[in-house]
Amino acid sequence: MTRMNGQWRLAQRPVGMVKESDFELIEEPVRELVDGELLVRNLYLAFEPAMRGWLDDVKSYIPPVQIGEVMRASTVGQIVESKNAEFEAGQLVSGMLGWQQYVLTDGTPGPFGGLSKVPDGIPPQRMLSALGGTGLTAYFGMTEIHPVVAGDNVLVSGAAGATGSVAAQIARIKGAGKVVGIAGGPEKCAWLVSDAKLDAAIDYKNENVGRRIREEFPKGVDLYFDNVGGEILDSVFLGMAERGRITMCGGISAYNEKELPPGPRNLMQTVIKRLSIRGFILFDHLAEAGQAIANLSEWTESGELIVEEDIQEGFENTPKTFLRLFEGKNLGKQLIKIADVE
Amino acid sequence: MTRMNGQWRLAQRPVGMVKESDFELIEEPVRELVDGELLVRNLYLAFEPAMRGWLDDVKSYIPPVQIGEVMRASTVGQIVESKNAEFEAGQLVSGMLGWQQYVLTDGTPGPFGGLSKVPDGIPPQRMLSALGGTGLTAYFGMTEIHPVVAGDNVLVSGAAGATGSVAAQIARIKGAGKVVGIAGGPEKCAWLVSDAKLDAAIDYKNENVGRRIREEFPKGVDLYFDNVGGEILDSVFLGMAERGRITMCGGISAYNEKELPPGPRNLMQTVIKRLSIRGFILFDHLAEAGQAIANLSEWTESGELIVEEDIQEGFENTPKTFLRLFEGKNLGKQLIKIADVE
Repeated sequence: MTRMNGQWRLAQRPVGMVKESDFELIEEPVRELVDGELLVRNLYLAFEPAMRGWLDDVKSYIPPVQIGEVMRASTVGQIVESKNAEFEAGQLVSGMLGWQQYVLTDGTPGPFGGLSKVPDGIPPQRMLSALGGTGLTAYFGMTEIHPVVAGDNVLVSGAAGATGSVAAQIARIKGAGKVVGIAGGPEKCAWLVSDAKLDAAIDYKNENVGRRIREEFPKGVDLYFDNVGGEILDSVFLGMAERGRITMCGGISAYNEKELPPGPRNLMQTVIKRLSIRGFILFDHLAEAGQAIANLSEWTESGELIVEEDIQEGFENTPKTFLRLFEGKNLGKQLIKIADVE
Repeated sequence: MTRMNGQWRLAQRPVGMVKESDFELIEEPVRELVDGELLVRNLYLAFEPAMRGWLDDVKSYIPPVQIGEVMRASTVGQIVESKNAEFEAGQLVSGMLGWQQYVLTDGTPGPFGGLSKVPDGIPPQRMLSALGGTGLTAYFGMTEIHPVVAGDNVLVSGAAGATGSVAAQIARIKGAGKVVGIAGGPEKCAWLVSDAKLDAAIDYKNENVGRRIREEFPKGVDLYFDNVGGEILDSVFLGMAERGRITMCGGISAYNEKELPPGPRNLMQTVIKRLSIRGFILFDHLAEAGQAIANLSEWTESGELIVEEDIQEGFENTPKTFLRLFEGKNLGKQLIKIADVE
């Protein structure tokens, strides 16, 4: 049986807002396996705002995706054939396998890691959400970069997104005094309070963010977990408490700008309020991922941590689904399902 | 003998660049001392960029100077008369005594501290430079906020100013691998290399700061001590090393702007490079000032730390001398001498 492998490759570098036509769909046959190889069929592809940064030809923490290359992405798949003693057909695995239907590999880790077996009893897509890159990012941000201290007044932006929603809930689990999330639109904000059990939500599309921060935090914000940058970050600077901490996780507001927009006018609040600002990248913390996944699993199983997954369907819709992140459409982790477990 | 006390008071709040006419000179007689009081005659007044911030009616780390109030400033003076058992006539003292010729006080500390006796053997103006607020600010920034680590590649802006010049030299004393200062104009840059013994200087008025940073630090800047903010900070973000530290001491570039200018476009380098940014205010560290002054004195006496003082003369020139800070005219600590030791 010759299988055809659909691949979404980078066709051209996006200028400004990424669009579907920046990618092209190619089909090619999957060759026969040789000894030591295995074939993975992707089931779910994961999308993250940071992937937008991988498309620009600039020096960053990892090299850019090259034109003509399969788009880099985390996925969960199932081994459909194996000539490798370490992997059996049927096994579910996760890895950076990209926007494609099949991956033929000898199982040795590439520059972005190898294959991880999905533990029994865990829904495979969970490996891409709470137990995947975005969940782990939230975890290390809230426990290592600027750990939540009991009683902290915590604010999280992008709070209905995959990282923000986990970060905000970890703050609650770790004993924050108050946790408020910033998100776009009434639906997301309602979810933050009713499902994620935050103390309040701020709708940046319909409310004055600065005023709402002052209302919710009359004594100021002790810990701000920032996923968006831009104007929201600027407003937050004015609402920080003395000796407050800002954990900078990302800045989705500028990822699709042709030129970098100006930064926060209120950055000098860092001096006046003696703030600490720290940025981080998940890749630096992967050695501790085992313990993090154990904690995150425990919280999701106990129901303390609610995980929302926005699962689109159909491999042909892959680039369109990526764009949902920048249109603010996703609630929770943006995934696409492209095949069923067999 | 009735003495006349000249006082420079705040006449109006400056809009944009501070100007001489924002202050007015008032003369009033000094009344007779009653028991417990002493009279200080100011000898030197000190000027700092942060004083510009005290003129704006905004919430900050200290209340603003009120209109009609004597301008707040650090000074060194001599006790010319005392009816207080703890202070003798002739004693040199320093304190926040303001832009005035005489201060009548009972010696109890006010909201900005009390009177400190100038130790024997120390030139009085030194209490306002290396051993004063700006020197202490440099000290705590370089030893506590983000301590210099041996081998660090260190960059300091405002490096010919009172704080920057001490900060850069402390980096050298503490074993930095390389220390480069940014200053305006060839004269200041020459001083940084020949007198302050830095490894190099960057003239932001005549050189491309970003390119020069890349030349001087091909592996990136480990520690940046920022006194200026603005475009220079923006350039430095691109030149930081991974896991670099930025100590934010001030942002003179924006102190006289009517509206806050935009912040650094490259702030998101904080994420990509995992930077740590910390702001601080000297007032939080005054409990440790004794040890700091002891170390700074030792370094100045041994000649490891060169102190430059820009001493203008004449009480009538006080506001004009303050403006020198924002015109970039001062090399080292800006002071004015308004009377001789008797």
